[in-house]
Amino acid sequence: MSKPSIPQGTRDFSPEEVRKRQYIFNTLRNIFETYSYQPLETPAMENLLTLTGKYGEEGDRLIFKILNNGLHEKKEEDKGRLNEEWGKVLSKAYSSPVVTERALRYDLTIPFARYVVMHQNELAFPFRRYQMQPVWRADRPQKGRYREFWQCDADVVGSTSLINEAELLCIYQSAFHQLGIPNVSVKINSRKLLAGIAELCGTPELMMDITIALDKLDKIGWDGVAKELQQRGINDAGITQIQKVTDVNGNNEEKLMALEAIMDSSATGLQGIAELRQTLAYRSELAEEQWEAKVEVDISLARGLNYYTGVIVEVTTGAVQMGSIGGGGRYDDLTGLFGLKNLSGVGVSFGIDRIYDVMEELQIFPEHLATGASVMLVNFGGANEQYALHLLKALRSEGVAAELYPDAAKFDKQMKYANKRGVAYVLLPGDEEREKNMISVKNFTTGKQEMLALPECINMLKTV
Amino acid sequence: MSKPSIPQGTRDFSPEEVRKRQYIFNTLRNIFETYSYQPLETPAMENLLTLTGKYGEEGDRLIFKILNNGLHEKKEEDKGRLNEEWGKVLSKAYSSPVVTERALRYDLTIPFARYVVMHQNELAFPFRRYQMQPVWRADRPQKGRYREFWQCDADVVGSTSLINEAELLCIYQSAFHQLGIPNVSVKINSRKLLAGIAELCGTPELMMDITIALDKLDKIGWDGVAKELQQRGINDAGITQIQKVTDVNGNNEEKLMALEAIMDSSATGLQGIAELRQTLAYRSELAEEQWEAKVEVDISLARGLNYYTGVIVEVTTGAVQMGSIGGGGRYDDLTGLFGLKNLSGVGVSFGIDRIYDVMEELQIFPEHLATGASVMLVNFGGANEQYALHLLKALRSEGVAAELYPDAAKFDKQMKYANKRGVAYVLLPGDEEREKNMISVKNFTTGKQEMLALPECINMLKTV
Repeated sequence: MSKPSIPQGTRDFSPEEVRKRQYIFNTLRNIFETYSYQPLETPAMENLLTLTGKYGEEGDRLIFKILNNGLHEKKEEDKGRLNEEWGKVLSKAYSSPVVTERALRYDLTIPFARYVVMHQNELAFPFRRYQMQPVWRADRPQKGRYREFWQCDADVVGSTSLINEAELLCIYQSAFHQLGIPNVSVKINSRKLLAGIAELCGTPELMMDITIALDKLDKIGWDGVAKELQQRGINDAGITQIQKVTDVNGNNEEKLMALEAIMDSSATGLQGIAELRQTLAYRSELAEEQWEAKVEVDISLARGLNYYTGVIVEVTTGAVQMGSIGGGGRYDDLTGLFGLKNLSGVGVSFGIDRIYDVMEELQIFPEHLATGASVMLVNFGGANEQYALHLLKALRSEGVAAELYPDAAKFDKQMKYANKRGVAYVLLPGDEEREKNMISVKNFTTGKQEMLALPECINMLKTV
Repeated sequence: MSKPSIPQGTRDFSPEEVRKRQYIFNTLRNIFETYSYQPLETPAMENLLTLTGKYGEEGDRLIFKILNNGLHEKKEEDKGRLNEEWGKVLSKAYSSPVVTERALRYDLTIPFARYVVMHQNELAFPFRRYQMQPVWRADRPQKGRYREFWQCDADVVGSTSLINEAELLCIYQSAFHQLGIPNVSVKINSRKLLAGIAELCGTPELMMDITIALDKLDKIGWDGVAKELQQRGINDAGITQIQKVTDVNGNNEEKLMALEAIMDSSATGLQGIAELRQTLAYRSELAEEQWEAKVEVDISLARGLNYYTGVIVEVTTGAVQMGSIGGGGRYDDLTGLFGLKNLSGVGVSFGIDRIYDVMEELQIFPEHLATGASVMLVNFGGANEQYALHLLKALRSEGVAAELYPDAAKFDKQMKYANKRGVAYVLLPGDEEREKNMISVKNFTTGKQEMLALPECINMLKTV
């Protein structure tokens, strides 16, 4: 028999990992609920037609497709047709509904849009939803990139109010505050500002080109960006204008005022600036003073996705070498893909796997998540086992997570288990304890041992 | 554009449904953790080889297989081979690693066994784990049967102690107590008792035949069972013996004593009785008095799965017309499938979808799960909007889930939204409230409205 394994790019999550991941999910869930976002879950499988054409040509190829079942039951005379359709799978079409008509969820955005369109008559708009589920992509696996990974999105559709943008910024700040991730920076920009820059250059059609070049400012510096802008067809006057924009500095309001002066001939650009200013104003009404994450206007922020049309955001932490741990923005016509027009939306996403990695590297997960239940009762057999069961029942009925070693095995064996399992306390219900109706408690970290009455013991364990 | 839809047999879960399902999952999770069971999660995809041959021929056919990616990139000279392999998919083999080498999880038991074998050196045995994840089966969808559904399993491997069986019974009792499902009956039997009956009939090799016939006692009565036993090759003397067994009645101990008398020539049968007695004794040491679910010895309980070897259990409720809502038992060699021998285990499973349906039909979900956040602030615009933001921040910082209507839309429109969204309280921060630094609170159920100071308002909303 060959050694069992799991598919490349997938992961088993050990008890410790599940608890730590649940901690992140629960923290975010509580914040979403406090902001009145509602949970949604969609199936792992979508109709292939729902997904294809939504993620670009490269995306289409990375969708995991599910083989139709029952193909072996087809009649002999249908096999010719089946072989023909199989040919399509091997060709550039790489798909055929006869061979595959279902596929695995590729992101949470398209299923959300599909859900809103299907349920548009029941939903109360603006509809705020959050969703935390795995997605699957046939990407080449590498460090930090998996074929099964979790997305966590919060979106509101059916409202153009910038209060929504402001609340999403607060959700980011509150979340990273509660998770304890230091040195977090929330960058904010507007696609309208980027469009304004393109107008300023006299080449509104090159907005995406300019965006792509600007996005590299961090990596290749201004000289590199200028060179790329030239290659992408921006003339020298345009490049000078763009340089003025990237030279803007100061605090957020100083940046916005400077941009206003540069942009005064672009209505779109000015609108972008006004929206950023209003978003920041709303945010400061709502934000709590103790949130450390800074919110900063960053004109070089681009965000890859084409469907963004207004404010865009991205989150990074300076505490660990890592890409963005969150991002999002406003999109004007997502549900249009499924026939429901004019429903503006704005949303943000949390990079769960990266947030996990950051917290692990910084060792900021609460300690108790490592082992879960932390009390083990030693099983001395016979009447002592019965006494142990009595204690076990009392502990659990008070909500103390506890286990009894299930066999009266050798003491050393039981201690070895307790050690490997990582328990914090071992209880020793032996003859003396049973006769005195007490219990010896051994702190497994300090080695300290004391004999307590049961109520004392329960009180002590309830507070650890 | 065609109307969007989801694959047959799959479901979207609305906010209300997600909250109710989470309530079930959280209740179970808390109990598992209190019993020191540890969470595990495995990937949605397994290697097809891990799954095939584990669920019988019918099961193999119901596994959802994932098409290998990148088939269109294969070289022209490889296409002949690909077509040949495709032929296997159309044949009785219905699979080929060149076409598909991954598949969707079909249950949680096989991935658990696979995990234990892969991590046998790191794990502390006995290893207790729980797992709550979706599985996928290409069954024909029908009422209550889905192609994507959730399983929730708790198992312990590496211990033969019957304390494990007793704790699993307690987990059932505690869970259905906490969920508030009435009229729950936990049936218990032993495969060894069933084997003993077959020995008694002089046909130990017909144990599964006898089990299958006995399983129908509820549906077809004794006469039907007797007829089926005859057809399955049990002679009249054997049938008389079996009738004696099924006639056994009284409380659990009375049944066990009567069975002991009948079984006294079968060592296996007597062992089964002894194990049931010990399991029930352990259970009564651990069980809390308020748990309503009855635990009853039922000699006709069979459970379908072949791999059970000891105690078996099944849970039903008399409150709703519904099949079993849970079941499980001891198996002696699950990990042997992957090369790790002699690791006995015992586990139980919760039927999440059915439990949900029962609770929905009985309307016993806590009311607050229907809407989640239950406070909406009306947006009167301008200075009142700013005042509303101030209130919103104060509410949220105190943990009160709340939202502000994001636009200063017409009052009627905002009320209509509040109504459709199902909020419990509407706050009205208008001119008067702002000037007095107070807030009018309208109970949306009773229609009652009163003006409160903010601290009063927060205290009131914190307790609802």
